[in-house]
Amino acid sequence: MKGFAMLKIGEAGWIEKEKPVAGPYDAIVAPLALAPCTSDIHTVYEGAIGERSNLILGHEAIGRIVEIGKKVKDFKPGDRVVVPAITPEWRTLPVQLGVPAQHSEGMLTGWKFSNDKDGVFAEYFHVNDADMNLALLPDGITLEQAAMMPDMMTTGFHGAEMAQVQIGADVCVIGIGPVGLMAVAGAELRGAGRIFAVGSRPNCVALAREYGATDIINYKNGDIVAQVLDATKGLGVDHVIVAGGPPQTLAQAVDMVKPGGVIGNINYFGVGDTLPIPRLGWGCGMAHKSVHGGLCPGGRGRMERMISIVRHGRVDPGKLVTHRFTGLEGVEAGLALMKDKPADVIKPVALLE
Amino acid sequence: MKGFAMLKIGEAGWIEKEKPVAGPYDAIVAPLALAPCTSDIHTVYEGAIGERSNLILGHEAIGRIVEIGKKVKDFKPGDRVVVPAITPEWRTLPVQLGVPAQHSEGMLTGWKFSNDKDGVFAEYFHVNDADMNLALLPDGITLEQAAMMPDMMTTGFHGAEMAQVQIGADVCVIGIGPVGLMAVAGAELRGAGRIFAVGSRPNCVALAREYGATDIINYKNGDIVAQVLDATKGLGVDHVIVAGGPPQTLAQAVDMVKPGGVIGNINYFGVGDTLPIPRLGWGCGMAHKSVHGGLCPGGRGRMERMISIVRHGRVDPGKLVTHRFTGLEGVEAGLALMKDKPADVIKPVALLE
Amino acid sequence: MKGFAMLKIGEAGWIEKEKPVAGPYDAIVAPLALAPCTSDIHTVYEGAIGERSNLILGHEAIGRIVEIGKKVKDFKPGDRVVVPAITPEWRTLPVQLGVPAQHSEGMLTGWKFSNDKDGVFAEYFHVNDADMNLALLPDGITLEQAAMMPDMMTTGFHGAEMAQVQIGADVCVIGIGPVGLMAVAGAELRGAGRIFAVGSRPNCVALAREYGATDIINYKNGDIVAQVLDATKGLGVDHVIVAGGPPQTLAQAVDMVKPGGVIGNINYFGVGDTLPIPRLGWGCGMAHKSVHGGLCPGGRGRMERMISIVRHGRVDPGKLVTHRFTGLEGVEAGLALMKDKPADVIKPVALLE
Amino acid sequence: MKGFAMLKIGEAGWIEKEKPVAGPYDAIVAPLALAPCTSDIHTVYEGAIGERSNLILGHEAIGRIVEIGKKVKDFKPGDRVVVPAITPEWRTLPVQLGVPAQHSEGMLTGWKFSNDKDGVFAEYFHVNDADMNLALLPDGITLEQAAMMPDMMTTGFHGAEMAQVQIGADVCVIGIGPVGLMAVAGAELRGAGRIFAVGSRPNCVALAREYGATDIINYKNGDIVAQVLDATKGLGVDHVIVAGGPPQTLAQAVDMVKPGGVIGNINYFGVGDTLPIPRLGWGCGMAHKSVHGGLCPGGRGRMERMISIVRHGRVDPGKLVTHRFTGLEGVEAGLALMKDKPADVIKPVALLE
Repeated sequence: MKGFAMLKIGEAGWIEKEKPVAGPYDAIVAPLALAPCTSDIHTVYEGAIGERSNLILGHEAIGRIVEIGKKVKDFKPGDRVVVPAITPEWRTLPVQLGVPAQHSEGMLTGWKFSNDKDGVFAEYFHVNDADMNLALLPDGITLEQAAMMPDMMTTGFHGAEMAQVQIGADVCVIGIGPVGLMAVAGAELRGAGRIFAVGSRPNCVALAREYGATDIINYKNGDIVAQVLDATKGLGVDHVIVAGGPPQTLAQAVDMVKPGGVIGNINYFGVGDTLPIPRLGWGCGMAHKSVHGGLCPGGRGRMERMISIVRHGRVDPGKLVTHRFTGLEGVEAGLALMKDKPADVIKPVALLE
Repeated sequence: MKGFAMLKIGEAGWIEKEKPVAGPYDAIVAPLALAPCTSDIHTVYEGAIGERSNLILGHEAIGRIVEIGKKVKDFKPGDRVVVPAITPEWRTLPVQLGVPAQHSEGMLTGWKFSNDKDGVFAEYFHVNDADMNLALLPDGITLEQAAMMPDMMTTGFHGAEMAQVQIGADVCVIGIGPVGLMAVAGAELRGAGRIFAVGSRPNCVALAREYGATDIINYKNGDIVAQVLDATKGLGVDHVIVAGGPPQTLAQAVDMVKPGGVIGNINYFGVGDTLPIPRLGWGCGMAHKSVHGGLCPGGRGRMERMISIVRHGRVDPGKLVTHRFTGLEGVEAGLALMKDKPADVIKPVALLE
Repeated sequence: MKGFAMLKIGEAGWIEKEKPVAGPYDAIVAPLALAPCTSDIHTVYEGAIGERSNLILGHEAIGRIVEIGKKVKDFKPGDRVVVPAITPEWRTLPVQLGVPAQHSEGMLTGWKFSNDKDGVFAEYFHVNDADMNLALLPDGITLEQAAMMPDMMTTGFHGAEMAQVQIGADVCVIGIGPVGLMAVAGAELRGAGRIFAVGSRPNCVALAREYGATDIINYKNGDIVAQVLDATKGLGVDHVIVAGGPPQTLAQAVDMVKPGGVIGNINYFGVGDTLPIPRLGWGCGMAHKSVHGGLCPGGRGRMERMISIVRHGRVDPGKLVTHRFTGLEGVEAGLALMKDKPADVIKPVALLE
Repeated sequence: MKGFAMLKIGEAGWIEKEKPVAGPYDAIVAPLALAPCTSDIHTVYEGAIGERSNLILGHEAIGRIVEIGKKVKDFKPGDRVVVPAITPEWRTLPVQLGVPAQHSEGMLTGWKFSNDKDGVFAEYFHVNDADMNLALLPDGITLEQAAMMPDMMTTGFHGAEMAQVQIGADVCVIGIGPVGLMAVAGAELRGAGRIFAVGSRPNCVALAREYGATDIINYKNGDIVAQVLDATKGLGVDHVIVAGGPPQTLAQAVDMVKPGGVIGNINYFGVGDTLPIPRLGWGCGMAHKSVHGGLCPGGRGRMERMISIVRHGRVDPGKLVTHRFTGLEGVEAGLALMKDKPADVIKPVALLE
């Protein structure tokens, strides 16, 4: 079968591979919609997760089941499914003890696609533990909407969850690419009052407002911490979601959050040895500013909840999609877009049906 | 001054009293908008809080400050303010130790208006600790909207907070009077996916849908627990908010929530010695179905957060207001409406300006 | 093989059954130590979980593995293991969404032994999902100590967890049978200051003091709520753990806990249609007195933590054992003791090695 | 009156000042026991909080009330009291909204003694809001024990609280000076199983074992992260409390905690612009390793809970005291000890009675 792969660091292209085989609990899925992600760019061109050879890329997919393991109970060939980017093994000791399943077999082990096995940019891909990691896609949700569930929605919303947004509180979302936009939606979904969104690209700014942002902070107008403090009488905000930026962004988050405030990071920091916590802004260690950061929740239950959010009209993630391509081949053009980031792109999708 | 008072159990009427006097930390406020509440009916006609003599009624008010204590820093005569129904003393040992301020000097002691001092249905009323218990009403919010903040919004939202509603989860709100409707809005505000609303009056049902309800459960169609279980493949819902009904409603909530689910009660139970937890539905004590219940948060910070919710368009509580009366005298007609509950009433307001 | 079984409601006796067979993930275990439990008495003589025919009793066991499924990775025949009373299936949707695994396939489904399959009072017994539900018993822990882990320790400690005991807070434990005694130890383990223990039997009272109780409340001296209120200047306690008693005990817990306080129930309520919440004591629904109740955590991780507690000398559960019997036959005598409850019994153990 | 003061950065000495005066809610206290703290050394010799001129030092005191404001209800001259190091204003908006009172008027504003007003190393000192910030010292507790409550106990325990230690979990405490030793005790008090203590001084190591440490990690034996990982099969620990060390210690904490684990920092970081979070150890921002850090809780309620811990024999903080001096003059010698840190010092106390 054909797949679009990382050939080596710095190089991507089409390769041929054997069609994967389903174990007794697994499924083989053919894609219906695929979404390239900035992470794929990090993986290939920055070598963010190290060298990989001929590894098929991609972790955001909606698909149709073509083969199913004999121990799978709830799915059958032909089913249209949402495939989370994160597909953990669920029967592990860390999960028993409350560790997020994203780390069920060790740190970040729930992230399998295009990390420790082939990703979804292929004619077929393999899903471990189908009963636990797939969700039926109901009618009435478009493929474009659905394609935002595996990563964009669950990641953005997780930022709001980790930041523990409270009803009527002030929130700042730093970074309003597609994940940051879903973090804005997530902040509204958790009941935020005022929502600051830090960004500058006009289409992202416009969409941030649609998703609930009330104030736009543009770094071109000066230091973003100073702008947030100015707008809040020097107090800062109750919650910060970090959804983009270099390591220094974490320091800005600490500096703009109130004592007792909470930071939720969903940014994948790809460079640097350390991330800085500002000593004075963190009260010399004593300011009760909590810092959380985590990979997005995957699995069936989470995807079913994303489906419920879309189905009941709470958030429309389809607005993120600015570019559409046709066929599997579309992922190549989509990825090129994510690499070049022209001003009008937010999120591309390749539609195979 | 003139006030509308509980004369004794079963009897209400206009009385004359001395205008109240502000202590050093207090304010005297003249009402701009007043909202009668079902609680006032419980107080007078059911004697729910015991005998009271010539106690001025009412606890939902927007007003203008007419006199201010000399230790008050942040307010001055002329300021338009939201007055929470619950005005606690904040400097107490229970508050230090994390007890909700509603009980800062003992159980329910934060509830002062028309409980242990004169209420707000008068030409003037007294507010303890103005800096901590008043919030400035900004322009751009109508008096009708604002009048829903002191009790309706904060109470309904608190139901969603106590029920610990999670993103994409299924919620059932039992009771869709004005508080229940705000609980529906609160469930949506905390990110609920599917929201069941239990009620039957057409205007309440219609408004529940506007505030986010996706499924209406009508007791006239049979047992409400059975209906909710039927609609959820026998699983029940993740969260229940009890916003009305007799003691048996608590049992229904336990029966319809999943194991591991959470119940938040905002219903004021006025009758009965005990409230029933169904032994089997509660897993003989072992089902991990948590039961919370609490008086709404008051105080300045909470009101400022309610203001932020309205100001930023998250929820429009003004839709609750079905009947408008003019002048202080309007509270009498408003209360009569709450007593008789004609089919078209949700919430009346008396406007004094 | 031989097993001690519930023949029908009201009757128990020895039966012969086929030795169980291990599926690919399972283990067959021969007991080294067995502890009869009051629950077994409820099951047989009160029919608490309904009719059962020839169901082998018992759910508290330490054993040696005699056969192991071929998919099991971490255990082998000959291993000495702690077997939790609760052995859930871990790979389920509720677990994904944070529901305690005790209910992983529905309410209380994690409780399998002597409930929906044969229990441990036999020459051999079957354990589902060995890698997830067994824990290696290290040297240096006696069989008597270990036999308290599967139920007594994990249940008692769970009471303190659900009651959310805080450092230096006042706690009341109602009921000081073996589970209640472990709740006292659990309260101390979570940092309680003053611990009231409600009970009257002299040996239980003495042991409660050893485990950390500072005040003994004896119902023979009058109403226990009044006694606790008297001892706390009318304030009540911050946390209550309900570890025994009839349904009315839950009402007493509500009445003696402060507003904002938390109740954790670990009592198995075997009779009655409903459990009473006192309306006034619960602030008419508004006192912020939270009520939790749940089956004890099982599984390997939990047992490993119980082992860590004993190994590092935090709690010595061996003190609970007042009566020792020899051989499998000992469970009959042990159960008779639990049924008759002579004054000197706290917990019997049958030792098979 | 006489007091031992910071004259300027780098210089300390005795000065004469006016005896302070009590406002209506305040108290004037004469010390009975005083404990010098490493923080005082930071303040004077490192200029950690900036320049101060003739500011009386000290924030750990037990005393006797000599004068009381007329609005104070619960205390009178002659009362022996525990004075917390942190004495916040409690009636503020941040406290209303759940911000720890340590920051009730802005970051770290609860810390008043020897920071923004004269400290306790004087013949008399001033306590704001006596009813909220003093606790009666009962009989049966020694002055040495009591003197550990204002800072050492509440700080160390807060580390265990912020690290959210669970029953039976593995904990590492980095730094076993007096605060770290109380963190070890706090970890045990929250139910830890295995407790690693990182330190090297023999008397501290011995005391760490008494307070519950099970494993000692000595940096002289190599990298402490590697040692902890070795001892835990490469898994790391569930919780880390940072109680000492340079900025790099925070990075070590992140590296040794499991994914999903929690860090509680009680270390006052006095130098450096930033504190480092290791990018890879933090899972590139996605490991769900939470970082908390905060000033110790003060106030009356907290001190009463510390008293309850000592009174009921849960922890004996008196073991920390290695050196005793007599009279107010003793603080000078005590401070010299804290500055020079000879091998045998853990905590000195000056006893004035």
